[in-house]
Formats: sequence, structure tokens, C-alpha cells
Amino acid sequence: MNEKKLFTFDSTLRDGAQGANISFSVEDKLRVIQTLDALGIDFIEAGNPFSNPAEAQFFQRLSGLKLQHAQIVAFGSTRRKGIPPEEDANLASLLAAGTKYVAIFGKSHIRHVTDVLKAAPEENLAMIGESVRFLTEHGKNVVFDAEHFFDGYKADADYAMRALAAAAQAGAEVLCLCDTNGGIFPDEAYEITKAVCDAFPAKTVAIHCHNDGGLAVASSIEAVRAGARQLQGTFLGFGERCGNTNLCTLLCNLQLKRGWECIPPEHLKDIYEAAMTIAETANAAIPANSPYVGMNAFAHKAGMHADGVLKYSSSFEHIDPETIGNKRKFLLSEISGKSAIYEKLKNYFPSLDRGGKEMGAIANALKERALAGYQYEAAEASFVLLVKKILGQYKNSFDLINYKIINEQPAIEGKVASAIVKIRVNGITKIAASDGEGPVHAMDLALRAALADFYPEIARVTLTDFKVRVLDSGKATAAKVRVLITSADSADSWTTVGVSEDVIEASWFALTDSIDYALMKRR
Amino acid sequence: MNEKKLFTFDSTLRDGAQGANISFSVEDKLRVIQTLDALGIDFIEAGNPFSNPAEAQFFQRLSGLKLQHAQIVAFGSTRRKGIPPEEDANLASLLAAGTKYVAIFGKSHIRHVTDVLKAAPEENLAMIGESVRFLTEHGKNVVFDAEHFFDGYKADADYAMRALAAAAQAGAEVLCLCDTNGGIFPDEAYEITKAVCDAFPAKTVAIHCHNDGGLAVASSIEAVRAGARQLQGTFLGFGERCGNTNLCTLLCNLQLKRGWECIPPEHLKDIYEAAMTIAETANAAIPANSPYVGMNAFAHKAGMHADGVLKYSSSFEHIDPETIGNKRKFLLSEISGKSAIYEKLKNYFPSLDRGGKEMGAIANALKERALAGYQYEAAEASFVLLVKKILGQYKNSFDLINYKIINEQPAIEGKVASAIVKIRVNGITKIAASDGEGPVHAMDLALRAALADFYPEIARVTLTDFKVRVLDSGKATAAKVRVLITSADSADSWTTVGVSEDVIEASWFALTDSIDYALMKRR
Repeated sequence: MNEKKLFTFDSTLRDGAQGANISFSVEDKLRVIQTLDALGIDFIEAGNPFSNPAEAQFFQRLSGLKLQHAQIVAFGSTRRKGIPPEEDANLASLLAAGTKYVAIFGKSHIRHVTDVLKAAPEENLAMIGESVRFLTEHGKNVVFDAEHFFDGYKADADYAMRALAAAAQAGAEVLCLCDTNGGIFPDEAYEITKAVCDAFPAKTVAIHCHNDGGLAVASSIEAVRAGARQLQGTFLGFGERCGNTNLCTLLCNLQLKRGWECIPPEHLKDIYEAAMTIAETANAAIPANSPYVGMNAFAHKAGMHADGVLKYSSSFEHIDPETIGNKRKFLLSEISGKSAIYEKLKNYFPSLDRGGKEMGAIANALKERALAGYQYEAAEASFVLLVKKILGQYKNSFDLINYKIINEQPAIEGKVASAIVKIRVNGITKIAASDGEGPVHAMDLALRAALADFYPEIARVTLTDFKVRVLDSGKATAAKVRVLITSADSADSWTTVGVSEDVIEASWFALTDSIDYALMKRR
Repeated sequence: MNEKKLFTFDSTLRDGAQGANISFSVEDKLRVIQTLDALGIDFIEAGNPFSNPAEAQFFQRLSGLKLQHAQIVAFGSTRRKGIPPEEDANLASLLAAGTKYVAIFGKSHIRHVTDVLKAAPEENLAMIGESVRFLTEHGKNVVFDAEHFFDGYKADADYAMRALAAAAQAGAEVLCLCDTNGGIFPDEAYEITKAVCDAFPAKTVAIHCHNDGGLAVASSIEAVRAGARQLQGTFLGFGERCGNTNLCTLLCNLQLKRGWECIPPEHLKDIYEAAMTIAETANAAIPANSPYVGMNAFAHKAGMHADGVLKYSSSFEHIDPETIGNKRKFLLSEISGKSAIYEKLKNYFPSLDRGGKEMGAIANALKERALAGYQYEAAEASFVLLVKKILGQYKNSFDLINYKIINEQPAIEGKVASAIVKIRVNGITKIAASDGEGPVHAMDLALRAALADFYPEIARVTLTDFKVRVLDSGKATAAKVRVLITSADSADSWTTVGVSEDVIEASWFALTDSIDYALMKRR
């Protein structure tokens, strides 16, 4: 047994599923379980078999599943007031779930016992002890979740400790301290966890926080310093209100910076991909600024900083992003220094001179365009085209003669918009028209129709994303908008940008950049 | 002087603007400053006047601005290597900025001095001391930002302390400890801040963290326990990579739970609204699970929890959400959804029966519209109109016969869009046309022209904000968009919503709701 081993306990499928907009199909759940198992998570709380028949069936299905590492945990509660354990349907459903481990929650806060449960203090202790005993006698390993433990300890430490003692004496393997309303501070987490670890030296103490004060990860770290050895959370922090402890952030912190083994070290590099898989399965985007696994977690914008990173990577990176499978990224903006711009461009323009006059012209153009509302951070393809123009390497694919886009109500045969686009390629003029679901859609189809004879290859390019942002929104409908369009072919994906007071023109700019870029790639 | 006063220092406009996709126009910046000032934030770092001419001009404009409470701070760096302070253009720009306070950063990590700056250790100390002295001699109050302080302290505590001493001896008012790469832990923040506070008892110590480990708020709290008295951060946590300390979360934690005065207590209730204003100005959504100000920060989903909250509110709420102007919310899927809807509507419809059939119809309509992409949280005016329609109390102000919006390139006399709108009011038909900066602008003007004879009062209604959001963005240019329009007259401001695959049609819906609402108010 590794002395610096911490056990990880993921509740994405149980407490995480309480989060707004989070729900998992059976297939989703299996995918999450397999992802967590492959990463080396120790315990996976898969649901509450008593909550509905579908959950109970799901545990049946899980019993046939072969996992490499993880233990599946079924979640439920202590027996109901006044019902003997052998007659309690919830405890019966936990036995029927067929898992080696079960987690049951019970009350440890005196006021919740008297005011919410409306039970006598001793009665609640009996509910805890008898329920744990019933489960251990049926061969289960029991995690006891002491609900509201920290607040309960502050209100009546003696009673909170007696609740843990009832579970411990009945054979619970793990005593889990829950900060149910998410309100504790790290220093309190340390003090109170320490008191518990001192009182129950033979038990594994777990820490289970919620993030209502933005402190769940920190409080969990302090609990570990105080002796807790099981980390509970949800991998991406999903959960009710402000979410649960973000288990991914927590384990990265403790393993990479404090030398604790949370998952087998050889799986560290898979963390980024696991996070992406779980997010996609939940149909939730990982916030770009998430620690460790966010898209921008290692993105550098300011010129000075980007410079620092290149000279001395720990300047602005607390860890090497590759350790967990993420990547360093340079963002382009008006405050980007020349070295960030150069880093970004050197693959496209190998002969570009880092210290040359052209770099100055490029940096200036970037500043000017930023003033006009352009942002190239997410629109690298438009940036490459801009640089080509500055370097005199740009050759346009077509000239626009004119376009006309018409929106009308009532719609004609269900189509609200139609577009006419007239272009010239190598002296040949072509006009084409299309209708569409909206003006940009109609314009996109008409432009493609006009170009089809000259560039049949653009049929393989599809638009995959379209974003609109209003700049200076105080100017209301005359405000500038920035449009980002993402396109893809079988090999590649690229994003372009356009800015104008006119959403149609902004879209036109982004659209033509997208097509220019596609054609340039092929040349 | 309140002994439990902490100073707040917001860098949304400087460090926050380093965040990906964050950029502020001059108008945006003024709005952020006014919002922070009204809340009682002590210091507002407004930018770096040396970075480009627009920033310098902005400080000129600020010098005429009257604030109630806050001090504006200009940000820059210590003098360059080998240049005397009086010849350093960056220091000159700080003087020219005309603020009482300036913040300058300098190096305190020995390896950054030798490897990145490539200066001798003593030379760097001279750069710090001379720069601070130059500024204080010119009457400035100086905040010295010790870059990489925590890592520097761990690498060579003596040198890191000498860097602070150089600033302190030269008259810096505040010594700011920066965790530049965002990697420290709360216990380290405590230990190291304590060493600094012990060494410089006469100086104000500030804490400036980044959130790369998800620990910025916690580390700042620990720094305060150790003696730091100035909190640096960005109000919503904007910033490079994983962002800066979320100042809003930090001050709520310290003021509501530890009794520190961070802002005047009478402004606590304005926090939620201030957060929304800043987010909107940055065109960034506040993540729904953000502590304190997130839309779901006090949202309850599970039946058990919702029950618990009603019986005993601290069960699942660490604070009373009203304290900071947020609200408890039961997610709409729950039965309790009806009472939330009723709460919202009772002011508009005093005779509405809480338990009546109509409430059921309203709840169902809300669900249906939500599925179609409508969100009424920010668009109460559209919600009120929807309810009027359900209750049979709606009377429309006009019938649309048809509209036609034309966008074309090349533009005609600089106008890219023109619109024709034909309506009918009380049997009288009216057609009007307008051109505009874009299709929605043209449509807005044409509709107002058509309505002017019937409803001259709409001349007093102005559109103040226009926002577009793409839903289902995977569908590219055929994706649904949601348009929000905010309108105002002298007495009031209201927001309406429209959803369609066609951005013009979505805008039309929001626009007509806005006008309907304005006219209904007057009846």
C-alpha cells in the first residue's frame, strides 16, 4: 500500500446529475463509467437504485460489466424513521443493486434531526447504526455520508461526532464528511477534519464538498492535510447550485504538486481527453477557463507573457500542459507581442523573419483591426489571409460584383430569405441565386452555387458553426457585430471572422474568408 | 478607520482584458468603472497608458470623470534596464495618465531576473527602487506589484524580500504579492504572506492571485488571515488562462462570513445587478453555477432539497440569496415552479389566481417556449405579453401585412440595407420605408415611421441594447438565433426576446414585442 495514496470517489452520475441541464441516458452512464475506470478512479457512485425502477435496472446491467479498476457504488439513505432495517425498501434496493460498496447518507446536525427529520436525537443515531449494521451484515462495504457534517459540528460537535461513532461502531469502512450547503472555509475544513481523524484513527475519512463559496477544491485539500484519505467530487464539478468539488482539478493539484497518488501516474496524460469525453457525454461544454482542462487553461495573450513563457515556461504556466494531455496556446490580439505572433505564423510562413520589418507591419495591422472590432484569437484562418495580404502573397479566388439579399414576411413557400450573388472569376461573370432559412443561409448557398463551376472542390467544405456577437451593444440595432464562421472538410477545420454594422456584411466577410482559405489550402 | 476594513482593487479593465474573448470599447470601460464605483470598490485599475495611444487617451478622458468613491489606477512597469527613470517612456506615460494612484510591476524572482530580464540582481533592485522613488517624488501613491512573488520566495526568499524592501524604502504605499502563474496553495499563501506582513508591518500588503489551480479565492482568504489588507482581482474572474481571483466571490465570502467590510454594507444588495451589468458589458455570460451571482447559485432541483430549503433554509443555502440581490429558484421542472412564476407575475396581474387553471396553462406555455429556444429570464416584457395572450387580455397594436428587407453590396450612398414595412391599424393601411446601417436597423426605422401617425408616443422609446445569441450552433448558418432587445423611455427600461432561424425574423419578434409593451404600458 502506497503511503501517499488517496482514494478517488466520483459522483458525476449521482450528485452530478442533480445539476441543472445535466441528464444521462443509460448509454451515457456506461460511457462515463468506462472513461473514469480507464483513468483509474477508485469508486464510481452510479446512482440511487431506490429513486426509480430505471435506476434499479441500471444496476442490474452494471453487475455484468467488467471494469479494470473501479468499484461501483450504490447510493441510498439510512432506514426510515420507525421502520426496522429489514423492512426498509430503500435498504432492500441497495442490497438488490448487487454492488460490493454502498454509500448511505444520514443526519449528523442536531437541528436537522429535530427540525427537519422531527426525530429524537437517539432515534437518529439508532437509524444510522442499524442501517450500517444491516448492510455490513449482508456483506457490504459501507461509506457513511454524514450530511451537513461541518455545520452540524459547529452547532453541536458532540452530537455530530456521535453520529459518526454510530456508523463506525456498526462497521462503516469510510466516514464521509459532507459540507452539504457548500459554505465552509478551508481553515474550518482543516480544523474539523483533523478532529475527526484524531477521533477515528482506524477509519478512512472522506471529504465531500459543494462549491457555493468557490472553495470546494481548497477545502478538500485542507481536509487531506488534516488526514482525510478519500476525495469525493464530480469529475468536472457538475452538481446542484454551484456544483460539487471538481474532482479533476483536485486530483491534478494533489498529484502534480503535492505528490499524492490519486490515479496511476501513467494515466495522468489521459486526463484532458477523459474530461472532454465526459463533457461531451453530458452535452456540457467545459468552461474555457477551467483549471488544467479548459481550452484556455494554457493560452497566452499578452505580449509580455507570451515572451516570458517562451523564455522560461514556468513564468506563466504552473505545470507543463502536456503532463495531463492539454496544450499550450498563443492567442492573437492587439496586445500580442511579436513573438506570440511569430510563434503562431511560423508554421504557415516558414521564411518569415522574426525580427524583420514585415513583423512590424503585421503587428500594426493587428492593432488596427482590433480597433475595428476584429478578434483573431479564434479565427486563425482569417489571420493567415490577412498576413498573406500584407506579404503580397494573397490571390483572391473571385471578385464580388454585387449581392442582394431579401428577407420578407410573409415567407414564400416557407422560405423567409433569398439571395442573388454575382461574381467574376478569371474574367468570367456568373450569377446565382438561392433561398434559405435566413439571410446568411441563403447567401451561403447562392455564393456556393455561383462558384461551383469554377471550384467544384468547395462542395466538400461544410459550415459547422456560426456565431454572432454584438460589439458596442449600447448602440442597439446600429451596433457593430462580429461573426465567426467555422468550416470543415474531411481533413481539417478552420474559423474565419467578419465585422460590420451589418450582420449580413459581417457574415459575407467571414464566409468569403472561409472559401478563400479552403481554396488556398488546396493550392 | 474601520479595523475590519479590507481594500478592494479591481483589475477587470486591465488584467481582465487579457482574457480570451474579452475586449472593452471606451463606452464599455466607462460603464464598468461607474458600476464598480457605485458598488463602493476602492481601486479600479483602468489600463496601461503605455500600451497604445488609445489607452493613454482613455486616461485623459477619465480625468474629467467624477467618481463617488473609487480611485482610478494606471498600470505600468518599472523603468527599463539601463534607462534612467526620467527618460523612461513608460514611467512618463504613468505621470501623464493623471491618476493619484499608479501600480507598477517588477521582478522579485531571482531566476526571472537573471534568465528572463538578463539583469544583475542588484540592477533589478535599483530598477524597482528608482522607479518607485521617481513616481512618489512626482506625488503618486504607488502600488508595487511583485511579479512571481510566491514562486520567487520559494526559490530565494531573501531576494524576494529585498525586492519588496526596495519598493518599500522608496515609498511604495502597497506591496502587492502576485501569484503570477496561479500555482500556489492556500497554506503556502498563508505562510508566505505572513512572513511579508511580519517584515513590513507599516505597509499595506495586497494579494493578487490567478486561478490556474482553482484556488485563487481560497489563497486570497488565507492571505487575509495572514495579514493582507488589499484584495486584488477582477470582478467576475476574467483574465488570462483560468482567470484572476474572482473578486465578487472573494468579497462576498469575506464580508458575509468573516465580518470584513470590503464594500459599504448598504451596497451588498446591489452585487448581483452589478455582476450582470459587467457581464453584459463584456458580452460574457456569467456561468450559471458561479458562486453567489450565478443563475443557478440558489437553484434547487431535487425534490428532497427543495423541501429541505422550505423547512429550514440553511439546509441547502449557505447564505440568504436576497442579501446580495440574487434569488432562490426552484427549477421549472418542479411543481414549485408555479409559485415561482406566480411570484413573478403577481405585480402585473394582481387578480391572477395562484392555484387556478390559468397558472397551469402559463406554466405549460413556458415549457413549450423554452423548448423552442425562448428564455424569459432577461426578457420579462415578452413574458408579460405572452401571459396577456394566454389570459385573453392581449390587444395587438398593429397587424403586419408584409415586410421586405434588402441588403446589398455595393452599398448605395453608404447604406447597405433598406426596409419596407406595411402595417394596418384600425383598418387603416400604412407603408413606410427606411435605409439603415444593417437590416435590423433599417427595419426598426421603417416600422417606427409606419407607426408614427398612429402612435406618436413611440418617438420617445429608444432601443438601448441589441444582443444576438446563436442556439444549436452546430447547425451553422441555418441555426436558430435568439435576439434580445432592450428599450427605454424616460421612466423605464424593458427587454424583449425573439427566436427564429432567421436573424431578421427573430429581431422582428423582439422589436414588435418591445413596441407592444411600450404602448400597453401607456394604456
